[in-house]
Order: sequence, then structure tokens, then C-alpha cells
Amino acid sequence: MKNFTFYSPTFFVFGKKTENEAGHYIKKYGGSKVLIHYGGGSVVRSGLIDRIKASLDKEGIKYTELGGVQPNPRSGLVYKGIELCRKENVDFILAVGGGSVIDSAKAIAAGVPYDGDFWDFFEGKRIEKTLKVGTVLTIAAAGSEGSDSMVITREEGMLKRGAGGDIIRPVFSILNPELTQTLPAYQTACGAVDIMAHILERYFTNTREVEITDRMCEAVLLTIIKEVPRVIEDPDNYEARANIMWAGMVAHNNLLGVGREQDWASHGIEHELSALYDVAHGAGLAVIFPAWMTYVYNHDINRFVQFAVRVWGCQMNFANPEETAKEGIKRFKQFLTSIGMPVNFKELGAREEDIPLLVEKMGLGENYTRGSFVRLKSSDVEKIYRLAL
Amino acid sequence: MKNFTFYSPTFFVFGKKTENEAGHYIKKYGGSKVLIHYGGGSVVRSGLIDRIKASLDKEGIKYTELGGVQPNPRSGLVYKGIELCRKENVDFILAVGGGSVIDSAKAIAAGVPYDGDFWDFFEGKRIEKTLKVGTVLTIAAAGSEGSDSMVITREEGMLKRGAGGDIIRPVFSILNPELTQTLPAYQTACGAVDIMAHILERYFTNTREVEITDRMCEAVLLTIIKEVPRVIEDPDNYEARANIMWAGMVAHNNLLGVGREQDWASHGIEHELSALYDVAHGAGLAVIFPAWMTYVYNHDINRFVQFAVRVWGCQMNFANPEETAKEGIKRFKQFLTSIGMPVNFKELGAREEDIPLLVEKMGLGENYTRGSFVRLKSSDVEKIYRLAL
Repeated sequence: MKNFTFYSPTFFVFGKKTENEAGHYIKKYGGSKVLIHYGGGSVVRSGLIDRIKASLDKEGIKYTELGGVQPNPRSGLVYKGIELCRKENVDFILAVGGGSVIDSAKAIAAGVPYDGDFWDFFEGKRIEKTLKVGTVLTIAAAGSEGSDSMVITREEGMLKRGAGGDIIRPVFSILNPELTQTLPAYQTACGAVDIMAHILERYFTNTREVEITDRMCEAVLLTIIKEVPRVIEDPDNYEARANIMWAGMVAHNNLLGVGREQDWASHGIEHELSALYDVAHGAGLAVIFPAWMTYVYNHDINRFVQFAVRVWGCQMNFANPEETAKEGIKRFKQFLTSIGMPVNFKELGAREEDIPLLVEKMGLGENYTRGSFVRLKSSDVEKIYRLAL
Repeated sequence: MKNFTFYSPTFFVFGKKTENEAGHYIKKYGGSKVLIHYGGGSVVRSGLIDRIKASLDKEGIKYTELGGVQPNPRSGLVYKGIELCRKENVDFILAVGGGSVIDSAKAIAAGVPYDGDFWDFFEGKRIEKTLKVGTVLTIAAAGSEGSDSMVITREEGMLKRGAGGDIIRPVFSILNPELTQTLPAYQTACGAVDIMAHILERYFTNTREVEITDRMCEAVLLTIIKEVPRVIEDPDNYEARANIMWAGMVAHNNLLGVGREQDWASHGIEHELSALYDVAHGAGLAVIFPAWMTYVYNHDINRFVQFAVRVWGCQMNFANPEETAKEGIKRFKQFLTSIGMPVNFKELGAREEDIPLLVEKMGLGENYTRGSFVRLKSSDVEKIYRLAL
């Protein structure tokens, strides 16, 4: 196990009707003028925004609002939010939505007290100060409600970049599984794949002797594997939704990744797919991850055997462990198909002839690599795309 | 799953040589005059206290010190610590040791800014303000390094009581597994049982649909079951020590207990054993827990079957699940024996003729019960003690 630090100071409020406590927690954390930040109209139409406003009114908290966050949130709206917060003397940002909304809120929060261009943070500048951020989560997927990171896309050149630091972790996050019950099956499944991918990027590691985090990774994967088919079958299943929602937080606040080298190549390879075809991140990951596994499993057969046996319940083939490793990847792919996810270019709507462009856009050139489990060069990435055809 | 809140704001610093960062973190959290609080002389003799002092000197932090914390920490030393802190204008307490030292430090920290008797907190008064507490952990067991609770024994009447609240969670905790390598096998095993017991008190629940926390409980139990025999065999095994040390934190910061009813009867039943015979808490738990399981398994055979199959790898007896449930308890007991723990009164040095006294001291009377998985009356507790003979 490697040396590490771990810090997750977010106050989590979980369960039915908890969105009505938003005002209480904003007051507790010293917010007096709030920006309510959200995406499309569904949170307005469902009455969620009204319930939240009522909870703020009850505490005498003033607010303004800014909707319109898109999936893959854009810098344009972040600039607009920063300007609005300054003009209205906002001191607290409440994100109501999924990962895109929360990431946009984090970026605005970091930008308001900063004299320069907030994009500096996405080019490596350290965030020293931010407004406080709280969240009311509506989708189990990105884990931004508990994470120290954010991803914003700059319109100029469609540059998708990440930034972070413990300082941008939300001060509180409200997770009410009821709010996810209206999500269509496809979006639910995309979220589930995102959650699984956050775990798998940590699970496939070269760090030895990490039984505690191995077992915890497996625990959360097993939960997803049990619960997701239940909500695909019955979207109103509160209990299954609840297990998935908490799993999404645990998968990405880094509790599962402490003390181990992490990979993150598949996320990079997928980003080019969702950028080019505007497909959901989770759907892209469902296509890329099995292909990545097929390409790299030989690097550490034992680890893939562990994945197959412990996560997928495969019978160990003692005479030929490689067969067991391959069986685990096959079962993973079957699971993805069973929850309605694409598992190849064709199902995703991606084109073989775009592969050179996808590889080029990753920008690894001749000397750079991506990933740490296996360090991938451009030629490796190309082979992985081809395995996903 | 039940509604819940979860808050674990402690900054964890984990790994080799990390005790040398104590000064850095105290400065970061605003400490300028520190009480270094510890137990016996071993942390002095080993040079640990000197290394910590050097790290404080390096940051220009002043300190005073107070050793002498006993297992089952006493109120007398807490009063002494409060007085010393006030006299020396201490603003930060650094606990160097295991759960007893950390609990004593938490009690001093709560007592210093309080006008009344600190014991009020152990009689239900809410803690409104405390000095900040940091820890350098030397034993994997109690989980106090990440928990919101403390247990202190008042000499008058030997009254052992708990108190807590999120406010007393340490601001930082330094966990260096190297510091646990000198622990004798018996103490290591006692610590491991304490860790397992913290999980089992949460695992046996009447709350349905808690797959995520069920799986995480099982993950940490499986880690202990793998790693503890390795350190009993080879006390210098850093990697196994590291996995156990982090497991001890995870087991008791309540991540594994969110959204579920918890039991805690076995802890209560054990407390009377350690109070009467001055035996280690972990050793007492090794005697009580299998007896409690044997007494209550009929209440929910399925849950005990799950424990047997998932944690102990028992083959499911589909024709007779009760046999599988019993097999799980048997394996647990065999494991405890294998790591050198007592599993009955005789091995612990407890006496059958004291059972009426033990039951009486629990003070349940005629109308009170303990536990929530099964609500135990005095007559049930007596039967559990008899099952442990």
C-alpha cells in the first residue's frame, strides 16, 4: 500500500424528502444569499426547485437563480454565473442536478473570489478560495456530490478539462433517491456504468497488497450488479435506487482509491467518443472498458481472475486461469448489454473510419502515454478502439 | 434503507514516517500551544514522542505533555488534563496512542472550554465547543481516530460511560502502520476482534435493503480475516498491518452503519466482563459475540446464512439453511481460536458463579432491554453468558 491522505468533509444528508432541508443546511454553513444553479426545465417542472425555494424562504435566505447547464458543462455559463454572483453578492451556491450542474457550480464558486480568468484553474493554477457549494443530487452517476474534482468544456476549441482540490468539495450534499425515480432506464444505466467505471479505474492497479480497497471496490461493484437490473425492471423501486445513489458517492469520493495507483486511461479514451459523437459518457464507457480489458488483461492475469471470481462469480478454472480472466470480461459485457448499454462502435453510433481522428485528438503524439496499469501509446489506443468495433 | 446523515471531516494521513508531519498538520489547523497526551512509557522509550516533539519544534509550536492514560481511561486524568490545559493556555490536543488515549484527549478537549463538570457530557449534556484534537495512532482497534464517540470511566462507582457528537471527531489523524509492528500478537488479535465487533454490531440489523453497507461490512471483515493471521505469523508484515490499520478506521467512522438500525448489545454484555475481570475488551468480545450469535440466529436465519456464505465462504446447504447459519458461527469461533483469542468463560478467566452479578450490573431491571436486532431482557443476557461458559 502506498502512503496517502484522505479527506472527505462533506456533510451528507440522505433519504426521503431531504431536499426540504436545503435551507436549514445553507443557514448552518453561513449562506445568506444563494445562487440556485440547475440544468434543464425538468427540475422546475417537477416542482423540485419550488420545494427548495420554500425551504430557503422558511429560513429567510435570499436567492437568485441560473438554469441552463448542459451535459458536458460549458465555460460560457460559468462566466455568466460568476458575473451574476458578483452583481448579486451571492455567498453560497446550491447546485440542483447531476454531475454537470455540480461541476458548473464548483467552477463558479472558484471563479467568484478570483481576480483572473477562472479557466486558469483548468490550466494548473491552484484554487485558494471559493464560495461554499451545497448540492441536491438528482442523478446517481458522476459522484461530484462528494468529489474534489470538476470537468468543464471551453467552447473555444471544445477543450474538455478537469480541475480540483479538496477546497471544492461540497460542504453538504443532499441525496434523495426519490428524485432519481423519474429517470429513464437508459440514463439510469449510463449513470450505473459511470459509477462502475469510477471503481474500475481504481481497481486495476499495479499496487500490491491493497486488500482493503480491493474488497471495498468489489463490494460497491456487487451492489451495482445487484441493484441496477431491479431499477431497469421497476424504475420506482426506492430501495434499489437508494443503494445505487449511495454507491455513486462512495465510488468517487476516493475512499476506494486510497493507497493505490489509479489508471484512468479508459476515461481519456472515452472522452474523445463523447466529444465527437455527443453520446452519453456512460454509454461510451460501456463500449471502451471491455475493449480496454481485452487489450490489457495479459499484463496481470491474476488481477483479472480476481475480478472474474469475486465480482462476477465465475468458477475458477484452475488448469487455465486465463480462461477465467476472459470469462470475467465476457460477463461484464453481457451485464452491460442486459441493462441496455451499447458495447461496440456500431451500437454506439461510432464509425470505424473516425478511429485515426479519435486517436489524433487524444494528442498523445509519439512520446506520451495514458494510464498507469498499462501505459498506453497512440498505437495501443488505436488497437483498443479497433477491439471496440 | 433508513434516512441518515454522514459526516467524517477528519483529515487522514496514512503511511510510513507520517508521524513526522504532526507539526505540519497542527500548524495547518491553527494549534499554537499543544498538549501531547499519551499512555504508558512505550511511546517514550520507542522514541516516538521525541520524533513528534522534533516535528513540533520544526514548526515553532510550543507544547506541554501528560502521560499515564490507562486502558479504560479514567476521569481523574481527564480532570488533571483540563486543569493543565487551562493553566498552560493549550489550544490543541495531540493524542499519541490507541483508543484510550484518544478518548481521554477528546474528553479533555471538550472539558477545557466548558464551565461545568466535563462529566455532564456523559450524562447527556450536548458538547457545544471543544479544543481541536489530532491523533497519532499506535494500535488498530478502537477506531476512535475517525469516530464521533469516546468512553470514559469515572472512578467513583467505576461508572463506564460514552459520549459523543460530530464536534469531537479529530481534525486530523496520522496512521503509520509501522508503529503497530511492535504490538504483541495477543494485543494485535484483541484489536482485530474489536474491529470485527464494530462491524458486526452494524451488520446484524433488522433494516431491509441495505446491500451497499452489507457488502462493505463484508469487505472489511474479509480483509481482517485475510490479514490478521499474517501479522500473528509475522508481526513485521507492514502490508498486512497497513490493511488492518485502515480497516480499523473504516469499521467505526460509521460509513458501514449508515441507513441501518444497529445493535450494540454484545458491547454492553462484554463491558461487564472487562469491568469485573479487567480483561481486554477484544478478548471479552471474542467470548460474547459467538454466544450472542448462537442465542439470536433464529431471529433471522437468512442474515446468518449470508454471513456464513459471504464472509466465511461456507457452502450453502440448500436443503437446510439453518445448518449453514450455524456453520458460519462455528467458523467465526474457529477463527477467533486460531488467532489466540479466548472463546469461553474458562479461557477468559471468568467464573460461572459470577453470572448473576454480571447480569445485575448491566442494570436492565425488569422493563429495559438492550440491543435492537433482538431486544434482550435480563433473562436473555443471562442465557447468553451461560452459552459462553
